Amino acid sequence: MRILVVNPNTTQSMTQTIEAAAKAVASTSTEIVAVTSSMGPVSIEGYYDEVFAIPGLLLEIAKAEKGGAQAAVIACFDDTGLDAARALATIPVIGICEAAVATAAFIAQRFTVVTTMERSRLPLEHLVHRYGMGARAKVRAADIPVLSLEDPSSDALPRLRAQITAALHEDKAEAIVLGCAGMADLAAELSHEFGVPVIDGVSAAVKHAETLISLGLTTAKRGAYASPVEKPYLGLMEVFSPTHMAAG
Amino acid sequence: MRILVVNPNTTQSMTQTIEAAAKAVASTSTEIVAVTSSMGPVSIEGYYDEVFAIPGLLLEIAKAEKGGAQAAVIACFDDTGLDAARALATIPVIGICEAAVATAAFIAQRFTVVTTMERSRLPLEHLVHRYGMGARAKVRAADIPVLSLEDPSSDALPRLRAQITAALHEDKAEAIVLGCAGMADLAAELSHEFGVPVIDGVSAAVKHAETLISLGLTTAKRGAYASPVEKPYLGLMEVFSPTHMAAG
Amino acid sequence: MRILVVNPNTTQSMTQTIEAAAKAVASTSTEIVAVTSSMGPVSIEGYYDEVFAIPGLLLEIAKAEKGGAQAAVIACFDDTGLDAARALATIPVIGICEAAVATAAFIAQRFTVVTTMERSRLPLEHLVHRYGMGARAKVRAADIPVLSLEDPSSDALPRLRAQITAALHEDKAEAIVLGCAGMADLAAELSHEFGVPVIDGVSAAVKHAETLISLGLTTAKRGAYASPVEKPYLGLMEVFSPTHMAAG
Amino acid sequence: MRILVVNPNTTQSMTQTIEAAAKAVASTSTEIVAVTSSMGPVSIEGYYDEVFAIPGLLLEIAKAEKGGAQAAVIACFDDTGLDAARALATIPVIGICEAAVATAAFIAQRFTVVTTMERSRLPLEHLVHRYGMGARAKVRAADIPVLSLEDPSSDALPRLRAQITAALHEDKAEAIVLGCAGMADLAAELSHEFGVPVIDGVSAAVKHAETLISLGLTTAKRGAYASPVEKPYLGLMEVFSPTHMAAG
Amino acid sequence: MRILVVNPNTTQSMTQTIEAAAKAVASTSTEIVAVTSSMGPVSIEGYYDEVFAIPGLLLEIAKAEKGGAQAAVIACFDDTGLDAARALATIPVIGICEAAVATAAFIAQRFTVVTTMERSRLPLEHLVHRYGMGARAKVRAADIPVLSLEDPSSDALPRLRAQITAALHEDKAEAIVLGCAGMADLAAELSHEFGVPVIDGVSAAVKHAETLISLGLTTAKRGAYASPVEKPYLGLMEVFSPTHMAAG
Amino acid sequence: MRILVVNPNTTQSMTQTIEAAAKAVASTSTEIVAVTSSMGPVSIEGYYDEVFAIPGLLLEIAKAEKGGAQAAVIACFDDTGLDAARALATIPVIGICEAAVATAAFIAQRFTVVTTMERSRLPLEHLVHRYGMGARAKVRAADIPVLSLEDPSSDALPRLRAQITAALHEDKAEAIVLGCAGMADLAAELSHEFGVPVIDGVSAAVKHAETLISLGLTTAKRGAYASPVEKPYLGLMEVFSPTHMAAG
Repeated sequence: MRILVVNPNTTQSMTQTIEAAAKAVASTSTEIVAVTSSMGPVSIEGYYDEVFAIPGLLLEIAKAEKGGAQAAVIACFDDTGLDAARALATIPVIGICEAAVATAAFIAQRFTVVTTMERSRLPLEHLVHRYGMGARAKVRAADIPVLSLEDPSSDALPRLRAQITAALHEDKAEAIVLGCAGMADLAAELSHEFGVPVIDGVSAAVKHAETLISLGLTTAKRGAYASPVEKPYLGLMEVFSPTHMAAG
Repeated sequence: MRILVVNPNTTQSMTQTIEAAAKAVASTSTEIVAVTSSMGPVSIEGYYDEVFAIPGLLLEIAKAEKGGAQAAVIACFDDTGLDAARALATIPVIGICEAAVATAAFIAQRFTVVTTMERSRLPLEHLVHRYGMGARAKVRAADIPVLSLEDPSSDALPRLRAQITAALHEDKAEAIVLGCAGMADLAAELSHEFGVPVIDGVSAAVKHAETLISLGLTTAKRGAYASPVEKPYLGLMEVFSPTHMAAG
Repeated sequence: MRILVVNPNTTQSMTQTIEAAAKAVASTSTEIVAVTSSMGPVSIEGYYDEVFAIPGLLLEIAKAEKGGAQAAVIACFDDTGLDAARALATIPVIGICEAAVATAAFIAQRFTVVTTMERSRLPLEHLVHRYGMGARAKVRAADIPVLSLEDPSSDALPRLRAQITAALHEDKAEAIVLGCAGMADLAAELSHEFGVPVIDGVSAAVKHAETLISLGLTTAKRGAYASPVEKPYLGLMEVFSPTHMAAG
Repeated sequence: MRILVVNPNTTQSMTQTIEAAAKAVASTSTEIVAVTSSMGPVSIEGYYDEVFAIPGLLLEIAKAEKGGAQAAVIACFDDTGLDAARALATIPVIGICEAAVATAAFIAQRFTVVTTMERSRLPLEHLVHRYGMGARAKVRAADIPVLSLEDPSSDALPRLRAQITAALHEDKAEAIVLGCAGMADLAAELSHEFGVPVIDGVSAAVKHAETLISLGLTTAKRGAYASPVEKPYLGLMEVFSPTHMAAG
Repeated sequence: MRILVVNPNTTQSMTQTIEAAAKAVASTSTEIVAVTSSMGPVSIEGYYDEVFAIPGLLLEIAKAEKGGAQAAVIACFDDTGLDAARALATIPVIGICEAAVATAAFIAQRFTVVTTMERSRLPLEHLVHRYGMGARAKVRAADIPVLSLEDPSSDALPRLRAQITAALHEDKAEAIVLGCAGMADLAAELSHEFGVPVIDGVSAAVKHAETLISLGLTTAKRGAYASPVEKPYLGLMEVFSPTHMAAG
Repeated sequence: MRILVVNPNTTQSMTQTIEAAAKAVASTSTEIVAVTSSMGPVSIEGYYDEVFAIPGLLLEIAKAEKGGAQAAVIACFDDTGLDAARALATIPVIGICEAAVATAAFIAQRFTVVTTMERSRLPLEHLVHRYGMGARAKVRAADIPVLSLEDPSSDALPRLRAQITAALHEDKAEAIVLGCAGMADLAAELSHEFGVPVIDGVSAAVKHAETLISLGLTTAKRGAYASPVEKPYLGLMEVFSPTHMAAG
């Protein structure tokens, strides 16, 4: 099996964290292809950044599908461009927020997502609600920039720990979901430290991608995810028209 | 008052329909600036097209705000890029789906949105749900391409009428919302024909934009719509970085 | 355009506050007719008062419609008698709670309504839920009698400010809605003071009424708001029978 | 135990139907006091009629409470004035819609309410939703005037039967709730005929009233149902002020 | 009328508390038959215990129905085995949680259930949600073992009181529901002490059972509660097969 | 990895169908241990059967955990005893309904579950709602006994096909979920025939179990799934007490 894992932000070092997490859990028969988007913001913090991360992400998915990938994982916790990717691709596409909350739901009745920036809290609440977990999961923000997770001198980790503590006591969370791809390397350590399951979306998404491949399931192309209609795209966006994307 | 009305698809003729609807209801003191996006798909039909309509749309909003517009209307019924636009702009931004359903709610307890393509039905259901009208409004698709609305030889109008009839009888709709900017010129005629209120989102959004200007209200910049963080955008997306957009 | 603004409580001085707020935002072509109900409680604080404010309110709406008003605003935040008014009138009728939350929804994802009495908190929660904003808006009571808002020596304002502060910190509100017509004169000042949008329902409702008139929309008369059936009303209520109301 | 059963419309003959249903199920130790409101519409069909049925209803409840009644039943299926009655009275007050759906919930997972007029369908849907049964109960209207239930020559009964049949087949209803006090005499016959439980709200409410009396429970006076604040009521409504009502 | 009240745990002394509460409110014409299950856990604390309390409970209900009981009450607050009991029996069956929240809803808009063990909090939240009260009721756990309620030297009562105090102040509860059959003897005292209605499920359920009997209503046998299909049950469970249960 | 797959009904032949489906998708490194419960009903059709399938199921899970299984799958579509199993076991436990709907949600926005008996429809609706998919999934019953799926001469398959057809046309389902473990062998054929994804819960659950094992995740033991409290179980149930189960 070949699974594409795209980091939709353009920060190479974060892709390394993501790739390590993906490879650590992949089956021996799975080839993980981790790529960094070639265009867009260096981190995705809120609605505006998200818009400009999607074109590069979709390019990578289209390219990988043509190259034989059997599933794709979008490695940003706001599940950047997930609906458009599902309309574009015929292979299954999984977002790491979606994968993480689906996984948490198998092992806990109540859980809390701890993310980075306050401005991402409501977008994640919308996602959690859409994935059917609005009554089971809370979302907390540690108020830390995404890239500070890569900076050992920052106070990112203490702030993250403080929110986990609050989740356990105030939300009575039974498990914790890490709400950023950049936290993919922290799950095991934090789970050990706090004595509760801690779920990373990247590794969860890789396993769910393997599941869909094994089950022979691909995105339903009837309804909301029907393939894009052929039509002209003008100006700077011309290269993203369904025809261009199909041509590669 | 100066209000920007952006057609986020790149079809000039549809902008003319939109502009006419906007000007027909604007106050005498309001200047309507109707523009067509300079890049992206010629029509927005489903999740994929939507992604590539947003950059051009945001460019127009940024440009107009610098040019003195006091509010912006996004004239596509999937409320293309609304959240990103609100994060970017300081002036208020209104989507025509949002405007139409808020208007319908003032005059009817149950109503039905009739849109074009089946693939847009679920995205509109998500919007209607998000705007708090999930229990009050149904969404129907007439299964017609967006641009067929401009082609008098197509069967677009008979199909639209058939769905309105079904809405009145099966959904017991008390009012009808037209689910596409390209239908902006049909509201009066259809209301007369069916004897129920028929709401067009473009004209509704223009009036709501005037309301926000009159009340001195602008988008809350605390929370989900905080201004984008300054950061590098790479590759083809570089020109859309918050810094570039601010510089104009 | 002529718009009726009814104060459904019988306190003349509150009508003056309401009238000033209405006139401050009305278009130059709009005539605001502000009236005080001729019967019922001097303030509306909870379910019981509300009942006895409705007959006088409906009388004013019937009279104004016959006199040529094109829309009516109910200037009490519990949207007193709104459903009955919509069944009675053919002109559109707007409640100030409904208008305020619809307006807040255009500029903020999360907001808090601050009202007067604790006994009004749950009725307003029901309204907010019914208007589709249950997941987006909280309601707080400042525990102040309605008429204390007119008494500069009362502690009404400090208590109101304390609840706004709590809303911003505890609810993470992005905007504030003032939950009483008697607060109509405070929006600008509080918005300046707290640095967030503060929405007054009276001025919002006037603008929405202008919108409906401009769009040529009136209440749907098919379904829940069908006109009352002609029938005898007995005793003290005889004068309110549909026949009497129609006769004027 | 003494239980007031008020018919809030002013049609004496309907009170007789209600009284018979109430007495048929009351415990031997219960005295049923059935009264007809002295003012207001002869039948309650929609939002407008409801408003003018409430004052007379509240007068009867206040009078009965002073006269020693220990509970009150509001015998109209739109639960006319229930919230105001609970604020006014110290004895428990029960609406027949509320009583019927609470009873149905003990014996069926899905049920359908069949009411009279289409214009009452949405108000009843709101009630059913408010009572927590929105996901379990549907509401159908037989499109019959309330008073036609008393006219053997009308087609009221065939129309009612047609809706019950539709409920069993299309809604897969497991039980039927009769959605009008004027149907109180039909439950046993229809249950026998259709072979499913058929619930009448009047008799259900009487039993629930006995339950509350036996359990020594009265309406919570903390929060939404706090007693009305003493204050002047002006004009025609003066006689309904809390002070007047207390004085009797 | 004969009503079975089953204590589905196997602790005789708790049955005595339950029986006293049941008899205290039963009508003079009602015979209360209180029984202790003959098999299963001595207390029901969480999902696991619940499973093994159900067979003994169902045996008692089947036996009592054959013996002429006209209704059954399940006297454990997790409404142990309620759905299976309704499928098995033809007489109506009522759970004490269901009875208590239905009763609370007649007298309060917001209330709080106070139960024993933290592990029972989420199961009760599920029940409350299923009974349609998710938006009106909160659930709190006093963190006390069920059987400690019978031990005067334990700190059960102080802990219970602390949660009631918190419910009144933090949840703004208007009434309290006691969330364990073992608290059946405390309602009157706590209501007096805290000055709010306090509801015990055992006594509420007995009265609702009387109501259903008086109204001639039995469980709907169409749909979810259709009688069990005759079929072999193997091994230790053989004695519970529908055939064996019917044979007695 | 060793994964237990329990058939909680006592029909060996159905276990063979289940085992084949499980082994067909398991990773090469996974050992599937398929067992038939040793006690209880030969098929699970509705609430009553479910109760008596749980003890045997829990015995198998306890035994397998002691024997080194790392995860357990409950192979009945009503997710028999799932909560109790999670409280009992320390290894993760997955239900096939839960697994199937979580899988469907990765590839479709709207889908329909097609199950066997009408009496199972509402229990499955409850499950689907609880798993957060109430707004996305419908449930249909083909009105066929569970064991008829094993009888080639029955009309089970035509009835199943008829419901799939109805789901695609009336529900506009984008994918189909097979709502019975006994259908595990039909997914590929039906998917090919109808041209949409068809999901079998058994194979889905096996893959999700592998995922949880790979991620090192086990059921949260804080909150609803805390381990059972040691206590006596009396009578026929004695052997299931936590102490006995731990002792094996």
